[in-house]
Amino acid sequence: MRATEIIMKKRLGQELTKEEVYAFVEGTVNGSFEDYQLSALLMAICLNGMTDRETVDLTMAMAYSGDVLDLSDIPGAKVDKHSTGGVGDTTTLIAAPLAAACGAKVAKMSGRGLGFTGGTLDKLESIPGMRVDLSKERFIRQVKDIGIAVIGQTAELAPADKTLYALRDVTATVDSLPLVTSSILSKKIAAGCDAVVLDVKTGTGAVMPTAELSVKLAKTMVRIGSLTGRRFSALVTDMNQPLGLNVGNALEVREAIDALSGRAEGPLVDVSLQLAAQMLRTAGLAETTEAALIRLREKLDSGAGLLKLAQMIEAQGGDPRVTEDIDLLPRAEQLIPVPAPEGGYVAAMRTSDIGYAAQALGAGRVKKTDRIDPAVGLVMTKRLGDPIEKGEPWCVLHANPASDVKEATRLLEGALAVSREPSPVPKLVHAVIE
Amino acid sequence: MRATEIIMKKRLGQELTKEEVYAFVEGTVNGSFEDYQLSALLMAICLNGMTDRETVDLTMAMAYSGDVLDLSDIPGAKVDKHSTGGVGDTTTLIAAPLAAACGAKVAKMSGRGLGFTGGTLDKLESIPGMRVDLSKERFIRQVKDIGIAVIGQTAELAPADKTLYALRDVTATVDSLPLVTSSILSKKIAAGCDAVVLDVKTGTGAVMPTAELSVKLAKTMVRIGSLTGRRFSALVTDMNQPLGLNVGNALEVREAIDALSGRAEGPLVDVSLQLAAQMLRTAGLAETTEAALIRLREKLDSGAGLLKLAQMIEAQGGDPRVTEDIDLLPRAEQLIPVPAPEGGYVAAMRTSDIGYAAQALGAGRVKKTDRIDPAVGLVMTKRLGDPIEKGEPWCVLHANPASDVKEATRLLEGALAVSREPSPVPKLVHAVIE
Repeated sequence: MRATEIIMKKRLGQELTKEEVYAFVEGTVNGSFEDYQLSALLMAICLNGMTDRETVDLTMAMAYSGDVLDLSDIPGAKVDKHSTGGVGDTTTLIAAPLAAACGAKVAKMSGRGLGFTGGTLDKLESIPGMRVDLSKERFIRQVKDIGIAVIGQTAELAPADKTLYALRDVTATVDSLPLVTSSILSKKIAAGCDAVVLDVKTGTGAVMPTAELSVKLAKTMVRIGSLTGRRFSALVTDMNQPLGLNVGNALEVREAIDALSGRAEGPLVDVSLQLAAQMLRTAGLAETTEAALIRLREKLDSGAGLLKLAQMIEAQGGDPRVTEDIDLLPRAEQLIPVPAPEGGYVAAMRTSDIGYAAQALGAGRVKKTDRIDPAVGLVMTKRLGDPIEKGEPWCVLHANPASDVKEATRLLEGALAVSREPSPVPKLVHAVIE
Repeated sequence: MRATEIIMKKRLGQELTKEEVYAFVEGTVNGSFEDYQLSALLMAICLNGMTDRETVDLTMAMAYSGDVLDLSDIPGAKVDKHSTGGVGDTTTLIAAPLAAACGAKVAKMSGRGLGFTGGTLDKLESIPGMRVDLSKERFIRQVKDIGIAVIGQTAELAPADKTLYALRDVTATVDSLPLVTSSILSKKIAAGCDAVVLDVKTGTGAVMPTAELSVKLAKTMVRIGSLTGRRFSALVTDMNQPLGLNVGNALEVREAIDALSGRAEGPLVDVSLQLAAQMLRTAGLAETTEAALIRLREKLDSGAGLLKLAQMIEAQGGDPRVTEDIDLLPRAEQLIPVPAPEGGYVAAMRTSDIGYAAQALGAGRVKKTDRIDPAVGLVMTKRLGDPIEKGEPWCVLHANPASDVKEATRLLEGALAVSREPSPVPKLVHAVIE
């Protein structure tokens, strides 16, 4: 099958056959399609779209372009969650242990921070000793033993997606429904789960800026995911401000431990409980969200969720005492309050710039090879709708000597909008799609 | 200027600024745009189009991406003609000497055969001794001295087009109005002419299959060409059958010499005269087409056109005696008639397959490095509308031992359609655009 014929067909807006979709994905992996042919095809897909059938074929072709994990040795429904990426969004560290404490088998492969968004792997690695590079065998054994493991994606998983994602990044073809959908779903399917809860972020700190686009993406992913024979559901949650108060790796682990210890309430805990409830429902472990929430709240109040996190940390080589004493986590040397430029009510935040500010301090990577400083980041002191006085700090930088405080401050300068009158606060969960 | 920003802008259907178009073309030449970025942009241009302003900028940026010939030393209006490519289409060898005999300065850069279409350079090289690789200085001097020169395009002319055309060929992005237009016009502008007549072919042996599309392309090229400050006009001419009777390099030179000697009449002569008339008008040497045709017919009848061809051949190192004795041109060893599969009237021809058959015999190249056999090709014995009996030859192959007669015969098998009743014959000139 010739590359140019497949490209031309999509250019003309026609539906590719299953054979053509597979030829394209195989050509990506074996190099018989050149990069410039792939990028022409990706652009044609961006502009002419794909039918559900094509998107399912693309998802499965990419999932099976490398290893596919076999989790059938683990009894029960294996459940995963996946966020499209946010700021101060450490729901995994709260929702996953709570769901596991309720009997779900959480076999999760996570990613690193990317751009302004944080990554669960980087957060976990701020725990002394913690390892995320377990072998497949150890991963499966741990899920069997304690019901939870969170590790990094191996290189052999969905290699076609790796190649295509790198190309999309440099050819302005990232945000396309069929391409985003197949990229995310193929990795989840290759990771072997049979139930996946997607957390699609929306707002100023999300890849999809409007709720309308986010709901569309969530619906597409759930529809395509279901067509692959797995159970998928999605929550569309708000990212018009950092979800938690802490942004940065150890800072977010602290907040997660605080939450599981019952010392913190608020949007981060609420969304984590909603996601965990959705995980139980999608895994078939709860009939209704209400029933799931009651059980999850019990596990939170009893400390069973915190214990599960401690078990996971210990199983992956980390020091479980951090769950009892958060001061065992690294701390930055310097705290620098960021004053509000004027008084009134917090009306809006450019959440992505808050993420980039944390990155400038050393919490994220600009280049792939950059080293992360686990201690640095920032802590929000105000949320949307809060009253604020001129000069009052709206967040506090946690910096170390290597932090680029100047750049972080510059990024934060335009990131806060203050209004005379209080404006409506966006709801936390915009939509649930099942 | 970042490549991804320019690509995204075109992906969203927005108009690129002049600076963005030039950055794209400069990036093509200096390698700062990667091939995969260029092909993504080319696909976005195919699907979202370009405004006239963008197409003019693209044309000029490509024209000035390398050397631009300065023909100002040649007094009078320099005129060029360009065909989008056809079969048995040797109008240049007839129209150019006739226009030069009428006082036009014909400074023409030609191409080689491509796919099923023939190339003027390959035809000229079938004349013993003839050279088409003259230096710029000699090219200009020859046009000054005798009013006509036909040479190959130098590598330094429009290098951006060279890179982009090679990419378009392998990414299914060839047939796009702004891309075709800027590719053709940029080369013409770099070649230094101030008046150009475009011969846009239409039909089964043309790149553009329908008259509607061909007229659209011709109008676009004339409109964009005029916006660059040069004089452009176009004829849309029929290519639903080979224009002349001969297809192949020396065979077509024979037919051109026959035409200029007054020994041949028919569509090839008619279209050549129309093109030459348009060249005179576009160069400002004739008020009306009728007046131009009268002068051209005189030069044909007096032998002045043939003499001009002989002068050009001699100036470029060829043997001018071929114009008196066509048997000095190479001849193939074997003549093989191709019988009609049934009787009736010639209703249609797959002209591209006739071109491919000539290519299989050795008249064209499959790979760039293939050697052409100047002697081989085929001679049509029937035209559209002619009555034909079953088994009667409709063309005759001129083959040499290295010719792939089997493949040529296979290609010709489905190339002729015969009907019970005579069908209407398409007109020769579909449109004139000025």
